[in-house]
Amino acid sequence: MRADPCPLCPENRIETCVLLDLPSHGPWQVRVYPHFRPLYRIEGDPGRSAEGIYDRMMSIGAHEIIVESPVHSKTLAEMSDEEIERVLDAYAHRISDLKRDPRFKYVTVFKNQGPHSGEEWPHAHAQVTATTFVPRRILYELRSAREWYRDRERCVFCDILRQEIRQKKRIVDNVGDYYAFCPYASRVPFEMWLLPRTHNHQFEALSPGENRRHLASLLGRTLRRLLPVSSAYHLVVHTAPNTLQTKGELSEYWRTIAGDYHWHIEILPIVEVRSKSYSIKEIYFNGTLPEEAAERLRQIDPGK
Amino acid sequence: MRADPCPLCPENRIETCVLLDLPSHGPWQVRVYPHFRPLYRIEGDPGRSAEGIYDRMMSIGAHEIIVESPVHSKTLAEMSDEEIERVLDAYAHRISDLKRDPRFKYVTVFKNQGPHSGEEWPHAHAQVTATTFVPRRILYELRSAREWYRDRERCVFCDILRQEIRQKKRIVDNVGDYYAFCPYASRVPFEMWLLPRTHNHQFEALSPGENRRHLASLLGRTLRRLLPVSSAYHLVVHTAPNTLQTKGELSEYWRTIAGDYHWHIEILPIVEVRSKSYSIKEIYFNGTLPEEAAERLRQIDPGK
Repeated sequence: MRADPCPLCPENRIETCVLLDLPSHGPWQVRVYPHFRPLYRIEGDPGRSAEGIYDRMMSIGAHEIIVESPVHSKTLAEMSDEEIERVLDAYAHRISDLKRDPRFKYVTVFKNQGPHSGEEWPHAHAQVTATTFVPRRILYELRSAREWYRDRERCVFCDILRQEIRQKKRIVDNVGDYYAFCPYASRVPFEMWLLPRTHNHQFEALSPGENRRHLASLLGRTLRRLLPVSSAYHLVVHTAPNTLQTKGELSEYWRTIAGDYHWHIEILPIVEVRSKSYSIKEIYFNGTLPEEAAERLRQIDPGK
Repeated sequence: MRADPCPLCPENRIETCVLLDLPSHGPWQVRVYPHFRPLYRIEGDPGRSAEGIYDRMMSIGAHEIIVESPVHSKTLAEMSDEEIERVLDAYAHRISDLKRDPRFKYVTVFKNQGPHSGEEWPHAHAQVTATTFVPRRILYELRSAREWYRDRERCVFCDILRQEIRQKKRIVDNVGDYYAFCPYASRVPFEMWLLPRTHNHQFEALSPGENRRHLASLLGRTLRRLLPVSSAYHLVVHTAPNTLQTKGELSEYWRTIAGDYHWHIEILPIVEVRSKSYSIKEIYFNGTLPEEAAERLRQIDPGK
């Protein structure tokens, strides 16, 4: 018995605009709504201006909810590969769709799952934000990837994955072209990254004939391996910024910087309640070596 | 009745080295110990090396506890100006002392006070870390301050404070040369910055004849104003990096970048339990305008 009816359950359906239903025929599994209490307003112009030495803009953007299943208690880890594939297709659809708006410089898909994750509702869902700026964490990755490419004419993420595959110490799993590993200098115990071996800067873009079944399978296996460690986690899809920009010169800059990127999914399990001052200082302490984390995760049966 | 005896109370004194007692004669008010479970080891060399494309180093550094009062339940907000001054003097002493070691690029003093702050013990204390690297948050500030100075030959923090004093909208209080204000684009509700009007990059350095009484008074008043909003907060002292470096070329770089900085104290009250994903994406949402926060804080009696 829940105190408040879950607004994501079909029986408590709030009358609002539906942005996407998947599958497109028959009963829906994945449904996308505008967020009920959005952090950004969709209409208008950021209206960038100066207030003395400060920069000011309106909080223009999109904020959506991706309901991942009509069933209240079904988590992503419990879904079939086919169901997870539909969830990933919905992520990609929303990124592609929102990138058609040249006001939006970046589209983030993220999931807060379980206790202490900051989840808004326990019902399986992800959230989407489209912003008129690139989040600082992503900008930092983009610039570092750009510098690496300029110096070496190689993608830093391709280099990372090649080293991981060669060293075998931190790789946990792979399905087809997709790999899951615990990154070197993991920020939290059992941190996991998922990415394709073939260079691709856009999560939302598939080659002709390609689908997301292998990625779905790898993601399901990864989440099930993490269950004995923690059922709570943050998941963030890192994809390239929007290159459809209104201003010519900036557009060229973003196209260059975007192409050097390599999309990936970051999963940060919540295994302990940590001091917030660490994130404020942007230093992470982690007592579990990624090599040990990977070894332990490899030994867990991913099921199915 | 506490389950475990508080290791910071004098009657449960753990036999360990004492790094500082203040005042230096008579019974101590402020006492500094090495941390009982340090995050960094004090002995040795960082031993920087490559692991393929990755960078590796040992966790060399210092980690200390500044016990701010022998009385278990006495918070900084409840202390007299004289007592707070002693606490600030202890912060400065530890920064100066640790900066004598050229291995340490940065010394951080921080305080986690109250529930959800990540405090290790409720007994009033601050922690000190000396690291062989500059924390990313500080590096970001240093580089931005450097760029601003290069373009304009003015310190960005001096510019910020001049604008705040002129606009009066976000200033909360001042004592002598020291000002407290809610920064533009505050990350959390009621965020406060304290800094001197006179340019100075080192918190630990005083001009001849200067003392920390005015700063102590302003800090006490600020913490007491914040009490009705939240008794829990993070406090971080931001000072210039260590310019005493072993390698000549780097040393020149750090001296240039350090001089453009302006020390300040950042206080982030904990008024709500927030989604951690915000800090992971390095975007902050804050529903309280700093102008409104400042107006409310100005109306609270700071006592004494």
